[in-house]
Amino acid sequence: MTGYEEPSPAVVTVIPLRGIPELVADDDLATLLFERASQVGGLRRADVVVVAQKAISKVEGRVVRLQDVEPSERARELAGPDGDPRHVEVILREAREVVRSRPPLVIAETRHGFVCASAGVDASNTPEDDQVVLLPLDPDASARRLRNRLVDLAGCDVGVIVSDSFGRAWRQGTTDVALGVAGIAPLLDLRGARDAHGRELVSTQIAVADEVAGAAELVMGKAHQVPAAIVRGVDIHGEGSASELVMPRERDLFR
Amino acid sequence: MTGYEEPSPAVVTVIPLRGIPELVADDDLATLLFERASQVGGLRRADVVVVAQKAISKVEGRVVRLQDVEPSERARELAGPDGDPRHVEVILREAREVVRSRPPLVIAETRHGFVCASAGVDASNTPEDDQVVLLPLDPDASARRLRNRLVDLAGCDVGVIVSDSFGRAWRQGTTDVALGVAGIAPLLDLRGARDAHGRELVSTQIAVADEVAGAAELVMGKAHQVPAAIVRGVDIHGEGSASELVMPRERDLFR
Repeated sequence: MTGYEEPSPAVVTVIPLRGIPELVADDDLATLLFERASQVGGLRRADVVVVAQKAISKVEGRVVRLQDVEPSERARELAGPDGDPRHVEVILREAREVVRSRPPLVIAETRHGFVCASAGVDASNTPEDDQVVLLPLDPDASARRLRNRLVDLAGCDVGVIVSDSFGRAWRQGTTDVALGVAGIAPLLDLRGARDAHGRELVSTQIAVADEVAGAAELVMGKAHQVPAAIVRGVDIHGEGSASELVMPRERDLFR
Repeated sequence: MTGYEEPSPAVVTVIPLRGIPELVADDDLATLLFERASQVGGLRRADVVVVAQKAISKVEGRVVRLQDVEPSERARELAGPDGDPRHVEVILREAREVVRSRPPLVIAETRHGFVCASAGVDASNTPEDDQVVLLPLDPDASARRLRNRLVDLAGCDVGVIVSDSFGRAWRQGTTDVALGVAGIAPLLDLRGARDAHGRELVSTQIAVADEVAGAAELVMGKAHQVPAAIVRGVDIHGEGSASELVMPRERDLFR
């Protein structure tokens, strides 16, 4: 035996933070979230605040107007007859590598190492037709800044996850995953842990931050303006970076 | 506008069902789950009961003793020096196709169409060293049988998800996903839905059953004997099959 003890979890609760107004650059998102949290009983120690990437990106000004974008020849090709070549041009600028494409679909690796549709560039939930929203430049740093403010406002330690909806290689539909974390250990490492029969566990790492992001999505909803939720009762606090959730290139079997 | 109204979700609660004993073939899992649920306030209408695949498989006798398995030449190759060729032989018998391999890792498509490590064949949490557990033959049917019994026992309508931990192509760590469902619409289809600005949503399908399975995993834990949880407050009831969560072959860009 290794002396490792997996925590025995109690009830987990997921609480939507509703009524956040349309966000623009330099809005005080921390205060808005803190006020909405106060209306539903307030933040408690060890709560995880999950915030949609789009809310973060808007506040950070990561918005591009398509009328200002001149598409390259490659963007025109990848857009095909049904896509907007200006949108694809923005995707290419955000991408480190195009992993797969089938016009107008582009699956790309972002500057952060995430593999996702459109390099995370999205046109929905923007106030103007002509706008697309990019991923934050450094989602861990975004999470840290938000966490520092929330800890100050609430007077207790909380974690923050910046989430987004990603597709999966062999499964239909998106699930929300963690793009940035602060005060969170994103992987639960069971290497060396034993099952109830004393046998070493095979599935050795659980992406708990992704599961928490997905749980939060269940109350957030894309068609409503519910860009954040509190997840209470999960014991995932610690230090870490969302980069731990990225499969290292040398272990990637799928590109 | 389409008249579509995405439901506005309230608080979601995830409640572990603890103290389920080691399961063997023909155990009455429905009664065991119902009794444990009664100890935490009982099942309510529209609850989703998430049950680990391994619990279902044990009750259904989907267990193989490795001493009875004669490995083929191919199994010996794929096992490499570090794997157990008998274990790999069982994987090959469960697999419709080997998608990738790097000894001793085998990623395969199961008879159900799921792409996952070891075709879902797992040695952890088995009472004997020599045993491996296979996926249920028809996880939707397993979920339906369990749901019928639970509805009878509880006297109210509940949904059931059979879950398992799957890895992902470009992300570290596993998340729990739905292998079988009953009384559940596994995908929330937002095609035609509009965002708060009246713009059509791009991420058109959300794999809500996978997010519910992942939320349940947060309280289940592999090292404990907590093979099930109640997820309360999600509005995903309806008719459907976990096969809806499988990416159709013609849309699969990654094999």
